[in-house]
Amino acid sequence: MNLITQENIQVGEIANGLPLTIPVYRLKGNGTGPNVYIQANMHGAEVQGNAVIYQLLEKLKRETLASNITLVPYANPIGCNQKSGEFTLGRFDPITGTNWNRMYQNHSALVDGFVAEYQDADIATIKSAFKSRLINATTEILEGPSYALNTGKRIALNLQKLAHQADIVLDLHTGPISAKHLYCPEYAKDSARYFDIEHVLLIPNEFDGAMDEANFCPWWQLSQAYKKAGRDIPVLVEAFTVELGSQEKIDLTEAANDANSILSYLTYKEALQDSHYQPQAITRYACYLDDYLAYYAPMGGMVEYTAALGSHVKAGDTIAKILRMERYLSEQPLNEITLEQDGIAILHFASASVNQGTELYKFFTNYFEL
Amino acid sequence: MNLITQENIQVGEIANGLPLTIPVYRLKGNGTGPNVYIQANMHGAEVQGNAVIYQLLEKLKRETLASNITLVPYANPIGCNQKSGEFTLGRFDPITGTNWNRMYQNHSALVDGFVAEYQDADIATIKSAFKSRLINATTEILEGPSYALNTGKRIALNLQKLAHQADIVLDLHTGPISAKHLYCPEYAKDSARYFDIEHVLLIPNEFDGAMDEANFCPWWQLSQAYKKAGRDIPVLVEAFTVELGSQEKIDLTEAANDANSILSYLTYKEALQDSHYQPQAITRYACYLDDYLAYYAPMGGMVEYTAALGSHVKAGDTIAKILRMERYLSEQPLNEITLEQDGIAILHFASASVNQGTELYKFFTNYFEL
Amino acid sequence: MNLITQENIQVGEIANGLPLTIPVYRLKGNGTGPNVYIQANMHGAEVQGNAVIYQLLEKLKRETLASNITLVPYANPIGCNQKSGEFTLGRFDPITGTNWNRMYQNHSALVDGFVAEYQDADIATIKSAFKSRLINATTEILEGPSYALNTGKRIALNLQKLAHQADIVLDLHTGPISAKHLYCPEYAKDSARYFDIEHVLLIPNEFDGAMDEANFCPWWQLSQAYKKAGRDIPVLVEAFTVELGSQEKIDLTEAANDANSILSYLTYKEALQDSHYQPQAITRYACYLDDYLAYYAPMGGMVEYTAALGSHVKAGDTIAKILRMERYLSEQPLNEITLEQDGIAILHFASASVNQGTELYKFFTNYFEL
Amino acid sequence: MNLITQENIQVGEIANGLPLTIPVYRLKGNGTGPNVYIQANMHGAEVQGNAVIYQLLEKLKRETLASNITLVPYANPIGCNQKSGEFTLGRFDPITGTNWNRMYQNHSALVDGFVAEYQDADIATIKSAFKSRLINATTEILEGPSYALNTGKRIALNLQKLAHQADIVLDLHTGPISAKHLYCPEYAKDSARYFDIEHVLLIPNEFDGAMDEANFCPWWQLSQAYKKAGRDIPVLVEAFTVELGSQEKIDLTEAANDANSILSYLTYKEALQDSHYQPQAITRYACYLDDYLAYYAPMGGMVEYTAALGSHVKAGDTIAKILRMERYLSEQPLNEITLEQDGIAILHFASASVNQGTELYKFFTNYFEL
Repeated sequence: MNLITQENIQVGEIANGLPLTIPVYRLKGNGTGPNVYIQANMHGAEVQGNAVIYQLLEKLKRETLASNITLVPYANPIGCNQKSGEFTLGRFDPITGTNWNRMYQNHSALVDGFVAEYQDADIATIKSAFKSRLINATTEILEGPSYALNTGKRIALNLQKLAHQADIVLDLHTGPISAKHLYCPEYAKDSARYFDIEHVLLIPNEFDGAMDEANFCPWWQLSQAYKKAGRDIPVLVEAFTVELGSQEKIDLTEAANDANSILSYLTYKEALQDSHYQPQAITRYACYLDDYLAYYAPMGGMVEYTAALGSHVKAGDTIAKILRMERYLSEQPLNEITLEQDGIAILHFASASVNQGTELYKFFTNYFEL
Repeated sequence: MNLITQENIQVGEIANGLPLTIPVYRLKGNGTGPNVYIQANMHGAEVQGNAVIYQLLEKLKRETLASNITLVPYANPIGCNQKSGEFTLGRFDPITGTNWNRMYQNHSALVDGFVAEYQDADIATIKSAFKSRLINATTEILEGPSYALNTGKRIALNLQKLAHQADIVLDLHTGPISAKHLYCPEYAKDSARYFDIEHVLLIPNEFDGAMDEANFCPWWQLSQAYKKAGRDIPVLVEAFTVELGSQEKIDLTEAANDANSILSYLTYKEALQDSHYQPQAITRYACYLDDYLAYYAPMGGMVEYTAALGSHVKAGDTIAKILRMERYLSEQPLNEITLEQDGIAILHFASASVNQGTELYKFFTNYFEL
Repeated sequence: MNLITQENIQVGEIANGLPLTIPVYRLKGNGTGPNVYIQANMHGAEVQGNAVIYQLLEKLKRETLASNITLVPYANPIGCNQKSGEFTLGRFDPITGTNWNRMYQNHSALVDGFVAEYQDADIATIKSAFKSRLINATTEILEGPSYALNTGKRIALNLQKLAHQADIVLDLHTGPISAKHLYCPEYAKDSARYFDIEHVLLIPNEFDGAMDEANFCPWWQLSQAYKKAGRDIPVLVEAFTVELGSQEKIDLTEAANDANSILSYLTYKEALQDSHYQPQAITRYACYLDDYLAYYAPMGGMVEYTAALGSHVKAGDTIAKILRMERYLSEQPLNEITLEQDGIAILHFASASVNQGTELYKFFTNYFEL
Repeated sequence: MNLITQENIQVGEIANGLPLTIPVYRLKGNGTGPNVYIQANMHGAEVQGNAVIYQLLEKLKRETLASNITLVPYANPIGCNQKSGEFTLGRFDPITGTNWNRMYQNHSALVDGFVAEYQDADIATIKSAFKSRLINATTEILEGPSYALNTGKRIALNLQKLAHQADIVLDLHTGPISAKHLYCPEYAKDSARYFDIEHVLLIPNEFDGAMDEANFCPWWQLSQAYKKAGRDIPVLVEAFTVELGSQEKIDLTEAANDANSILSYLTYKEALQDSHYQPQAITRYACYLDDYLAYYAPMGGMVEYTAALGSHVKAGDTIAKILRMERYLSEQPLNEITLEQDGIAILHFASASVNQGTELYKFFTNYFEL
C-alpha cells in the first residue's frame, strides 16, 4: 500500500478570523512518471469530484506509481460552504459575482526571453527551468503585499502554485444538469481518447482565467516561441477540465467509474506501472468551442426539458416545453422550443423556472467523431 | 366546452413600483356542487403545481361541472422570481426569512359568539353565514391601514379571501426531492382515499400559519363549538396541502396524472357530474404528524442519498453515505448513516452538501395502512 | 490585571467538514457577585457587540471582580460569514429562513414539580438547584441523538448551556439602522435605569425563542409557581437584549461608551468591586411591546428616511418620502408618508428600496418616562 | 413648461411570464443642441440616480431646451428588485454572477470600412451615418434569434439602442460607501471641469463592457481611424459614468445638487438655452485608471473605516482598524491598517465584516489637480 500524506494549506481567512484551509493529499511515485495534479470542487455545488478523488485515493494506494500524484478535494472552502436556500451558491464569489474559476494568473509572459536563454537546452532542462519560473512567479505574487490580492485570487494562486509543479493537471467540475464532457486543448486531443467521456470540447489555446488554461497556455506559448525560433518542441504539459455530470449530487458508484477513466488516461501517460486501466470502447464526439451553442430561453416561463442529455437532436426537434400559465387564455400556454440545427444536448439549466435569456441548454453543433 | 375566465389580482408592489399580480382562472358550475379553490407555487421553487393547474384546466373545460372552480397558478409572484444562483430561492421572504406559507390569518376567533347566534340554524345557513364572516374578516384587514400589512401577509390575505369562498381548498406544493404525499386534517382522512397519493400525513386541527390550516381550522373550531353547545355538525370545509413530488421540476405527463388524482377526489365530492375519474387501487400509508421524523445530518459532509423515496426502510438500514474528504487519513472518510427505527422515506434534502444539522430526510414512522 | 482565559467550543460542522467554533473568554471574580454572561453577533450583520466585548475585556482586566464573567463574541460562526453581495446575510439560516435568535430552548416546564420539592429551601439552594436543572436539561438535548438537532438549535443550545450558568445574561444585538434600545422583561425594569440607553422596550414574560427569554422565562415561571404555592421569591435571573445601534458597522469609540453602560449596570448588580461606573443622567423612555409599532411601506418605491432615529415624531409628521419614478407623469411621484400618532422613531429599514409591505420603521408609541 | 412624454419599453420577461419594463422619459428641444441620454440604477442598490433623474425632470421642464433629452430611471428591473436580506443584491445577475454593467456590446468594429466610405464627408454626415450604423447594429442583434441573447445582454442592448441616439451619455451609478467621482474618458477631460465632482478618474479608451465605454469607444476608434487616414476629426460623442456617492440611499436634497452639476455640464455643451447653471469653484483631482488603487483586506475581521471619504491620506496613515476577537489573547486583536503611499480615499466596502481579500478601499494615487 502506498503512503498517503496530508497537508492542510491555508488560503485565506473569513470575517470571524477563522482560517480557510484546503486538504492536500500526496502519493509518491518512483519518479519516472509525469507529476500529476488533480483538484475538485472549485465551484461549490460541483461536489462529485470529491467523490472521484475519494475513489482515486482508494485505487491509487494499491497501484505501483511512477508519478508523484497530488489530489486536492474541497479546493474552494468559501464556495463549498455558501448556501442560499437549500442549494449551494458556489459558482462565483457571493460578494463580487466573479466566477471562482476565472481568477487564475496568466503567466504566458514568462515565455518572453526564455527561449533566447534556453535556445539549445534539452527538453528536460527546458521543462524544469520553465516550471521553476511558473512556480516562482506564482509565489512572488502570493508573497507580495497582502493588500494587493483579492479573496478568489489568493485561493486560485495557492492552487496554481501546486498545479505548476505538475505535468498533468485535471480540474474536476460538473455542469448544472449535465452529460459528462471534457474541456480539452486542441493540441492534446489524442489524449482525450483515453478518458471514458463521450463528449470532447476542443478549446483554443487562449487564456480566459480558468485552471486548465493557466496550466496549458504558458506551455503552449513556449512551444510556439520555440517554433518561431526554429525549433520544434512539444507542449510539455497537459491540462483538462473534466465535467463529471450534474452538480449537487454525490454518486459513489459513478465516481468509481470516473476514477477508472482518469486512471486509464494516467496509464496512457505512464503515471502508473503495470496498470490494467484501459479506456472503454465508446464513440467520442468532438466539437470546437466556437460551435458550442449556448441556447438561451426565448421567453420566461416554466420549463420541461425534453432533450435527453447526450442525445443527438435533429434540427426542428423539440428540446423543451415552456409553460406560461399567466397567458392560458390569451396565447398558447405551452410552447414547444426547437433547435434550428443538429446538435448533441450536453447540459441544461438546473431549475425549471427561467427568465427570458436564461441559459437553457448547451449543445455541441458541427460535431464529429474523434 | 366550459368558459374559463381570467382575472389578474394585484397583491403588492415591488421596489421599482411595478405591481405584483396573480392570474386567477375561474370555471362556473351549475351551482349544485361545493365551491373549489386550487392554488399552486406559493413557494417559488415548487413549480409543478402550475403544470397540474394547466392539466386541470385542459380537462375541466371538457367536463360537466356542478361546482364553481377557481384555479390560481403562480400564487406568489415574489417567490416565483427570486433566483439565487441557478435555483429559485422562494421558500421564504428573502428580506425577513419568513416562510411564505406561514403568513395566513387565523380566523378561529370568529367562532366565538357565532354558535349562540346561529344555534338552531340549518347547515346551509351556518355555512353561508360563517363563510361571510371569514371573507369579511379577511377583507377588513386588507382594507385596513396599508402600513399595518407586511409583504407576505398581503399576498396571503389576498389568496385567503379567494379560498374562503370555497368549500374545498387544495394548496399544491412539492417537497425538496420528494415522494408524493398529502397533508390531511385528521377529520378528513376518508377523503384521502380518493387521491392517488400513497403517503398521507394526518395533521392535527391546529393553526400554524399555512393555507390549508387557515381554511380548515376555523371550520373545525366551529364544529367543536357546536358540539360543546350540544349539536353535532360536520366540519363543513376540507382543505389539503398536496405535495406533488420534487421542486424545480416540470413534468407535464406526471402533472396529468396528478390532475386525474385531484379530479378523482373532486368527483367523490360531487364537484363534477357524470365524471369517470376514480382513485387508483394503491395501498395508502398514513402517519401522524408527531411521528413524522425529521432526520438532521449528524455531521457535515457530502451526501449520497441511498434510501429511495417511498421505500420502506428497516431499523438499521443505511439511508445515506456521508463523505468527509478532509479526514481521509484521520478517520473513516465514508460514514454510513442508519435509521434507528422503521420508516418510509418521504423526502430528502435537495443538495449533496450538508452542514451538521441540515434536515437530511423526513420519514413516516409508526405508519399504518389507511 | 485579571487573568483572561479562552476556550474554543465547537458548535457544528460545515459541508467541507471544518468545525464551527466559538471563542469563549472568561474572567474569574472572588465569587461574591452574580455570574455574568455576555454574547454578541448572533445575527451575522450585527457586529458592533464584538467591539463592545473587546472594550469590556480591556476594561474588565483592570477591575476588581466580584463576579465570574463569560464573554462570547462571534456567537454564530455561520451567520457571521454568510455574505450575499457586499452585505452580511446573517439574520436567519440561509437554508431554512429561521431566525437564528428564535431557536433557543424553552425550559419553563422544568418548573413543574420543582416547587413541591424545594418548597421551603432557601434562595441559594433554589437558585443552585434550578440552575442545575436548566444546565442539565440543555446538556441532555445536546448529548441526545445527533440526528435530532438542526444546525441553529445546536448553536443555540451550546450558547444556552453557558448562559444558564449565569445570573445575568446580556445578548448584544443591533437593529438595521437604529437608535440604541433595550429589550427588558417587565419585572426587571428598575435595572433598565442603569444602562445608558434612552429607549426601553418592556417585554412580557413569554417565550418566543430568543436568548433573553430562554434565560428569564423559566426563572419568572419559577417565581410565579412559588407565588401560587404561597411563597414570594424574586425572579433570580435577569436577561436583556441590548440593541447597540446599527448593523454592518464597527465604531470602537461608541463601543467604549457601550462598555461603560454595561459596566454601570454590572456595578449596580455588584459584579464589580469599588467600581466607579455610574449611569448617565439621561431621560429614559419606555414602551410596552404591544405598543411597539411596526410601520410597513404602504407602497413600493425608493425611500428617503426623514425621521431622525430617537426623534419624537408627532402625529401627522412626515417620516419618509417614497419616490416612484415609473409614475412620474401619471401620479404624484414623491409621496410623503406620515405617522398617524405620536411616536419615537427607533429603527428603520437598512435599504432605500422597499416593496409594498417592507418594514419601513419601528416606533415606540404610548411611551412614557421610565 | 416643456412636455414630458413617457414610453415603457420591454426588456425581458421573468419566470412567471410578467414583462420586465423600463420607463423612458423624453423632453424635446429645438434641435440645435446635442442629443442627451441619461440613465440610472443599472446596479440595483445604486438608487440615488433615480432621485437625480427626478430632480432633473423637475428642473428641465422649466428650461428652454436646445437638445432632445432622454431620461431612464430604473434601468435594470431585475437588479432593482433583487433582495437578499435587507439589502439589494443588484450588482450582478444572481444566476450567473455577471456584472450587469459589463454586458453592453462593443461596436468598434463598425469603424472598419467606414472611413474609406466617408473619407471626405462633412462632420454632420459622418456623425449621422455612424450613429445609424451603431443603432442598426444594436437593433440587428435584438431582432436576431431570441435564443442567442442572455438576460443581461437583452437589457443592455435595449438601453444601448436608446443611448446610441445621443451625443452625450451619462450613466448614473454610486459606489458602495463612496465620495462622488466621475469616470471620464481621457479625451473628454476638459468636460470634467463642468461637473461639481471633485474626483475624476481618467479612463483609457478601451472597451470593458460598460455603458460609457460602449458609447465612447466606437467614436474614439472612428476618430483614430480618420487620423490614420490623414484627417483630424474630434471624438463626436462624450460618455461618462457619474458616481453619485453611496448605494442604498436616497437623498433628495443631494439629488438636486447633482442635478445642478449635470445641468452645468449640459449648459457647457449647449443643450440648454439661456441657462444659468455654472460649475462650482472647487478643486478637482484627477487620477489615471492604472493609479486607482484597490486595497484588499490583508486579513479577515471586523473593520472600523477611519479614512474619511474624499480625504487626502498620507503614506503611513491609518485607514482602518481590523478587530479580530478570536485572537484576543494570542495576538494583538486590533490591527491598524496603513496606506503605503499618499492617496485620496474614494470609496470603501459597504460592510464591517471582511474576508481576507475583500476590497476594503479604493484610493486615487499619483493624483493631480485637473
